[in-house]
Amino acid sequence: MVEETREELEAQLEVLLEKVFKVGAEEYYKRGFKRRVGYGNRPAIVHIDMANAWTREGHPFTCRGVDGLIDAIQQVNTAARAKGVPIFYTTNVYEITDSSVPNDMGLWHSKIPVESLPADSYWAQIDDRIAPEGNDIVLEKRRASAFPGTDLQLFLAANHIDTLIITGCTAAGCVRHTAEDALAYGYRPILVKEAIGDRVPGVVQWNLFDIDSKFGDVEPLADVLNYLNTMPPFGETVPKPSPDRQIEVDFDAKNTVPVDA
Amino acid sequence: MVEETREELEAQLEVLLEKVFKVGAEEYYKRGFKRRVGYGNRPAIVHIDMANAWTREGHPFTCRGVDGLIDAIQQVNTAARAKGVPIFYTTNVYEITDSSVPNDMGLWHSKIPVESLPADSYWAQIDDRIAPEGNDIVLEKRRASAFPGTDLQLFLAANHIDTLIITGCTAAGCVRHTAEDALAYGYRPILVKEAIGDRVPGVVQWNLFDIDSKFGDVEPLADVLNYLNTMPPFGETVPKPSPDRQIEVDFDAKNTVPVDA
Amino acid sequence: MVEETREELEAQLEVLLEKVFKVGAEEYYKRGFKRRVGYGNRPAIVHIDMANAWTREGHPFTCRGVDGLIDAIQQVNTAARAKGVPIFYTTNVYEITDSSVPNDMGLWHSKIPVESLPADSYWAQIDDRIAPEGNDIVLEKRRASAFPGTDLQLFLAANHIDTLIITGCTAAGCVRHTAEDALAYGYRPILVKEAIGDRVPGVVQWNLFDIDSKFGDVEPLADVLNYLNTMPPFGETVPKPSPDRQIEVDFDAKNTVPVDA
Amino acid sequence: MVEETREELEAQLEVLLEKVFKVGAEEYYKRGFKRRVGYGNRPAIVHIDMANAWTREGHPFTCRGVDGLIDAIQQVNTAARAKGVPIFYTTNVYEITDSSVPNDMGLWHSKIPVESLPADSYWAQIDDRIAPEGNDIVLEKRRASAFPGTDLQLFLAANHIDTLIITGCTAAGCVRHTAEDALAYGYRPILVKEAIGDRVPGVVQWNLFDIDSKFGDVEPLADVLNYLNTMPPFGETVPKPSPDRQIEVDFDAKNTVPVDA
Repeated sequence: MVEETREELEAQLEVLLEKVFKVGAEEYYKRGFKRRVGYGNRPAIVHIDMANAWTREGHPFTCRGVDGLIDAIQQVNTAARAKGVPIFYTTNVYEITDSSVPNDMGLWHSKIPVESLPADSYWAQIDDRIAPEGNDIVLEKRRASAFPGTDLQLFLAANHIDTLIITGCTAAGCVRHTAEDALAYGYRPILVKEAIGDRVPGVVQWNLFDIDSKFGDVEPLADVLNYLNTMPPFGETVPKPSPDRQIEVDFDAKNTVPVDA
Repeated sequence: MVEETREELEAQLEVLLEKVFKVGAEEYYKRGFKRRVGYGNRPAIVHIDMANAWTREGHPFTCRGVDGLIDAIQQVNTAARAKGVPIFYTTNVYEITDSSVPNDMGLWHSKIPVESLPADSYWAQIDDRIAPEGNDIVLEKRRASAFPGTDLQLFLAANHIDTLIITGCTAAGCVRHTAEDALAYGYRPILVKEAIGDRVPGVVQWNLFDIDSKFGDVEPLADVLNYLNTMPPFGETVPKPSPDRQIEVDFDAKNTVPVDA
Repeated sequence: MVEETREELEAQLEVLLEKVFKVGAEEYYKRGFKRRVGYGNRPAIVHIDMANAWTREGHPFTCRGVDGLIDAIQQVNTAARAKGVPIFYTTNVYEITDSSVPNDMGLWHSKIPVESLPADSYWAQIDDRIAPEGNDIVLEKRRASAFPGTDLQLFLAANHIDTLIITGCTAAGCVRHTAEDALAYGYRPILVKEAIGDRVPGVVQWNLFDIDSKFGDVEPLADVLNYLNTMPPFGETVPKPSPDRQIEVDFDAKNTVPVDA
Repeated sequence: MVEETREELEAQLEVLLEKVFKVGAEEYYKRGFKRRVGYGNRPAIVHIDMANAWTREGHPFTCRGVDGLIDAIQQVNTAARAKGVPIFYTTNVYEITDSSVPNDMGLWHSKIPVESLPADSYWAQIDDRIAPEGNDIVLEKRRASAFPGTDLQLFLAANHIDTLIITGCTAAGCVRHTAEDALAYGYRPILVKEAIGDRVPGVVQWNLFDIDSKFGDVEPLADVLNYLNTMPPFGETVPKPSPDRQIEVDFDAKNTVPVDA
């Protein structure tokens, strides 16, 4: 039996996933899922793990297709800086990478090779093509999500941010967990479609489908840029006081009985 | 053009996903991912959203293939109760489902129909085929993960639990976010393969693949039962003091340069 | 030697504390401490542990001077309800009060008699003189602060509350930890001076002094009522987007050397 | 009227507080409060804010009596290092101290002069008399407690620490909030009596009294040193699996009625 090359497999998967996502989306819409969380008034940006370990060749964490991400992120940054929107970068690094002593790698070392991410190496630094500027903040995180173990939530809450625009990698790891946490903690997650990467076939598409169905809005770069370009200067914004109203399902939970009860 | 039925599509997807996951797993292994977090010594069980809204026909949240989950969960509970292992159930419900006033649905109402989950209805109750007993604890959660907004972490920490055995639904939603959080906060996530459900084609398989690659160990029911059956009584256990050692990647982050630098 | 009665001791303490707090406040003002966090635009109320165990005679947790608190809280509730301001009550209770098995009392059972607070007793219920109404939310908490293990923060964040008006008991326990957490997590803590109680001599005064110096504003009931009476209906409010500006200390940290260096 | 000097006032307060704490402690003991949380088996140390801003003359945050703290902390560190016990230091600092732009000072800038604590100044560094060594970890925190916004809890959980030995300053601020959080999150707080400082009269005594009554054990330096000197090497320890059993109050909450009901 001849095995497909990775490229052939990805092409087949692309075709099939289109159909699968169509069926899945129909099911979700019918049930009242896949709503739009929408943009708020007072956003911040977070670029997940766009450090050299993820963006440059030769590291166990190297991702695919990073050049496209870099280009999209540059455009987001230019638009955000013009309005004074706060920009965060994360990098996933550890003070102690010796697993024979108490260390800050936690259980993640038991799943993935975080011992290759010491805090003070070249690999830990944000890719200089999108280097932080001015008041940009670099968060050294220890887990997948940008929230646990960092002061991101403290910053977002005290500055009454209502929207978190998310880019970076990886789709199945740090980007997804960050989007889930953002929604859970009260920040509208907007994921920039062209600015999210990963390593293995199908993984970006699937995770963006799941996220868009349940946790945040996956939006084209052009829309995100338009939002940033047309918003007022950040200093003049006030947050949307509550979530957007939605068309609700016609289901009276208190007065229905299950079909099979 | 003739469109495939859902069943035909799922059959095609099943075949293709097997190949895709094989390629993905090889890539992960090569890079040092997809390690085993392993079982600890002092587990707790959490059954995610096995309430009527998910397990019975006729609700917007109804899942597929629930009978198999119920059966697997009954077996897990029997084994866990024989050893005094703590058992949690979650149900995702809200005190205030009127979105025109301040309410506890948060931003999740902006993505999925949580207005159909009032706290005091039939649908909110745990399926009586796996009804809580004795000191089992039912957590009323508001978000996908079982951690934010509940006292699960407080219980796990003070009782020095080291392992969280996870079942329930949905794979792409509450189960995955719970597994990610469990790993982040320091509890070994063990997912019972036969006991996890969802709603749309491919979504269980894909999420279990992602979780197993990065966040927790997806294990067959038989292995989980064997672990529970052969552990000492819970009251005699002490937690594993630290994560299991792993075979580490041969990569010296401080003395390498990127291929493309 | 004749020992003072408790009343005599409290009278002496009252006189001395006035002097001590004057000296302390001067020291704080000189250094730039004891600033005003100020009222925001979009408040919520939280009444800490005004359940029968704290408000009625005969329980290990019974507090002193509760009648005054009840009266003040009734006034706060009347003013808050007229504007649609969300009201929370906490009660500190446990599902499992048997410390010989895994339980939800945590380490707090190792300091105070939380075994006397089972979740389903008379003592756990909010005092019926200030009974919850309508959409008021009762939070069953397990720790001192109203934040860990509850969904309070999720509610405050998603509804963009900016101010947390705090009453109840005890000053040194649940009220103080709640005020500290509120400030940490980004909510302006306003403590209603006449509505905070405790059990032993001097403890209310000292804790309100500490809180006002570092964590939140202790304000007279009349001021809090005036704020609520003059604010717009809650549904028309938008949160203050950022903390109030303050007069800052004249100290250049980057260009000073220590006196003793 | 002649006003007392600060020294005279402190002398009077010392005498009166002794009586007040005796009365308070009797009340607490009678009710079943002021129990001993006790030492666990697997400790970590945290030195709160022993950076130059707190330990050296000439800064708005300068504390009193710091030399005694330094001496005690040196002894704790020597004993802890001999056993391989993990040591944390916190320093309270900010990346952005310009309050006219979005910044990481949060609401705390609205109460105390945190604008004098930029991250990269002399004042932010740990006092070199107790300089960090080897694998010691310095946490840059933004709030009072060492927990929110840092990865302390992630470290403690994954390494199954059961005890947190706490020193530093200030008693009414960062030390107290850290002790409260440690207990809440499941770590036995042990406060080293001789190693805790603050700024104004009476504040250390009062806060240690409150903490010892409700949140953690205040222990003499000699006892803490003895514990460290007699424990096994850290690498050989396993955590205590559950809180210590306590003598419980004789109160049946389900079958009592209030005195005033």
